[in-house]
Amino acid sequence: MPLYDDPPDGVTVRADGLRAWTSSLVIAVGTPADIAADVAEVLVAADVRGIASHGTARLEQYVKLIDAKVVDPAARPVVVRSRASLTLFDAANGWGHHAGRVAMDRAIAAAADTGTSISVVRNTNHFGIAGWYAMRAAAHGMIGFALTNSSPLVAPTRGRVSMLGTNPIAVAVPAGRHGQVVLDMATSTVPRGRIEVAARRGEALPTGWAISADGTAALTPEAALAGALQPLGGQEETAGYKGYGLALVVDILTGVLAGAHFGPNIVGLFSTDAPSDLGQFFGAIAIDAVDSRAAFEQRLEGYIDQLAATPQIPSAPGRVLYPGQPEAERTDRSLRQGIVLDRAHFESLTKLASRFDLPAPSGADSRRAAR
Amino acid sequence: MPLYDDPPDGVTVRADGLRAWTSSLVIAVGTPADIAADVAEVLVAADVRGIASHGTARLEQYVKLIDAKVVDPAARPVVVRSRASLTLFDAANGWGHHAGRVAMDRAIAAAADTGTSISVVRNTNHFGIAGWYAMRAAAHGMIGFALTNSSPLVAPTRGRVSMLGTNPIAVAVPAGRHGQVVLDMATSTVPRGRIEVAARRGEALPTGWAISADGTAALTPEAALAGALQPLGGQEETAGYKGYGLALVVDILTGVLAGAHFGPNIVGLFSTDAPSDLGQFFGAIAIDAVDSRAAFEQRLEGYIDQLAATPQIPSAPGRVLYPGQPEAERTDRSLRQGIVLDRAHFESLTKLASRFDLPAPSGADSRRAAR
Repeated sequence: MPLYDDPPDGVTVRADGLRAWTSSLVIAVGTPADIAADVAEVLVAADVRGIASHGTARLEQYVKLIDAKVVDPAARPVVVRSRASLTLFDAANGWGHHAGRVAMDRAIAAAADTGTSISVVRNTNHFGIAGWYAMRAAAHGMIGFALTNSSPLVAPTRGRVSMLGTNPIAVAVPAGRHGQVVLDMATSTVPRGRIEVAARRGEALPTGWAISADGTAALTPEAALAGALQPLGGQEETAGYKGYGLALVVDILTGVLAGAHFGPNIVGLFSTDAPSDLGQFFGAIAIDAVDSRAAFEQRLEGYIDQLAATPQIPSAPGRVLYPGQPEAERTDRSLRQGIVLDRAHFESLTKLASRFDLPAPSGADSRRAAR
Repeated sequence: MPLYDDPPDGVTVRADGLRAWTSSLVIAVGTPADIAADVAEVLVAADVRGIASHGTARLEQYVKLIDAKVVDPAARPVVVRSRASLTLFDAANGWGHHAGRVAMDRAIAAAADTGTSISVVRNTNHFGIAGWYAMRAAAHGMIGFALTNSSPLVAPTRGRVSMLGTNPIAVAVPAGRHGQVVLDMATSTVPRGRIEVAARRGEALPTGWAISADGTAALTPEAALAGALQPLGGQEETAGYKGYGLALVVDILTGVLAGAHFGPNIVGLFSTDAPSDLGQFFGAIAIDAVDSRAAFEQRLEGYIDQLAATPQIPSAPGRVLYPGQPEAERTDRSLRQGIVLDRAHFESLTKLASRFDLPAPSGADSRRAAR
């Protein structure tokens, strides 16, 4: 997921305060407290990691879905079928973050016993950052996986119409003194939000990000927004069919397997027309079923050290990183100095606070705070 | 994997004849008959699917490794650790194709019971096409996965030295009247073999395939062969770090997890300097633990139909395909009309035949056959 620079006119909030406030708000819209705690945990984790597009900035949209009775804030996931290493849940159209946490915990518990396990979830909703669920398994000494399908925004190779979501793949791995390796990637070259940022900044687009409505390469954000995103790899000659294949595999493991919506049949995640009925997939592999966790982590630490020492290309903006390293560095800073929210984001939260008679989330103006 | 056009001066052989001949040759180098049958099955499957780079054309190199006592042709994989849904194998430096078949079959059998299972293998060797193992699970009504690490040929994003293999990801899914969806992709933009083909054809390279030794984009095959492949996505601005992340995750799930070699420490797969000690990963998900196979396949059939009907971009060389469709079409033709081997490939087989006192594989000259 793209990690954006701090806005120049931001407001700084403390992570724990934002979490408590988010939980109160989610309770105020009719959510039981334990479910609200999961939602707050996942959303604030995105803000802490610098992925503002997937954190509390989404609350306004979630509340709209609940207002429209398109999402049931009090619903709890139920187990539909289960074997020793596989569980199918129906999320009953409740909060995706809660169903995801429950499904991931079930996979972790089963993997501790059998070595590996998966949970698939149907009838669920947007769950925030996929990485959060994978990281939960990594915190238990496991390799964690999380997948979700999503609104159709990506054209398959050779096609000019959006047929697939940006269907992210998240994998997290405990990495000793390096923390965790966290790959959390859309299977499109960029997410739609990155094109929107380019539009605000007046940037041109490189080939491989998007196509226009007529199917030619979109070289402006406006053409891209009227067209479709391209899968990872971009054009056919640079192997865009691999990104298309990955997006399709994610959809097969989520929507098609779980019996949820998939592909072009998914209603926009934040549309109030109908429930999203997303499919999601969570997996865990118990490292200690293969080798001691310490031996595994020692190998991975050494590998990361080798990667970091790779001689650089002349145009490199910095050293070779491991997946999740920028987000881990942002997390350290967020926990030390607070999270910087942009002004429109902060104002959307204060508006929600006033509607539900809550105190506004406490923030300090970063322009003053910086003095 | 790239599917090449038939060579103009090829030799046509029947798949079953080539399989029997390959098996005899593999026995002749000291392999027990049951192991040789696995090797022949996997290698000829690559030729049948049109992936000549991974089939019987490799026999000459495999024999060299056995001559040099770098691979043990009679070794059998042993179970090192096991839980209900996870098994660690040591392949004892034997044929990768046999260890892979055994490990995949174990994952399939366990998944039939627990819903999902994985096998990880250490101390193994090149196993041919990853797709074959995934397809074996799909033939059992499961979603199959196969991963392997490989010789360092790919530079991480921002680096200019090869640190990772082209580490393929294969996923196969039963798809009803469409046969199987088979994604079998290197995590680099292209494999090294594609650059070698460009060199023979005198083609220029697009940005995103490879970098030169100095770290700039390689726009000629010669510059690329002296440099490194780029991960899927190419440059940093077109999200090459996602392909790098996928390659690293494959290596973590194979070499690092299994306790085999990984990253820059892997000796070239066809080098006689030392055993490869590759890591491999096989997984299976039992679809019928989630839903009836018929219901699942009906959903996937409909999805593929929708994808095939996507309106095309103006430059599309044909209709929208599903992953594995070109290889499935080539398989139909190979089984009907025979496999067309290029002349150098056929001659390498007749040379091996004469060395081991075997009849040459029976082939018909395609120039004559075409008349």
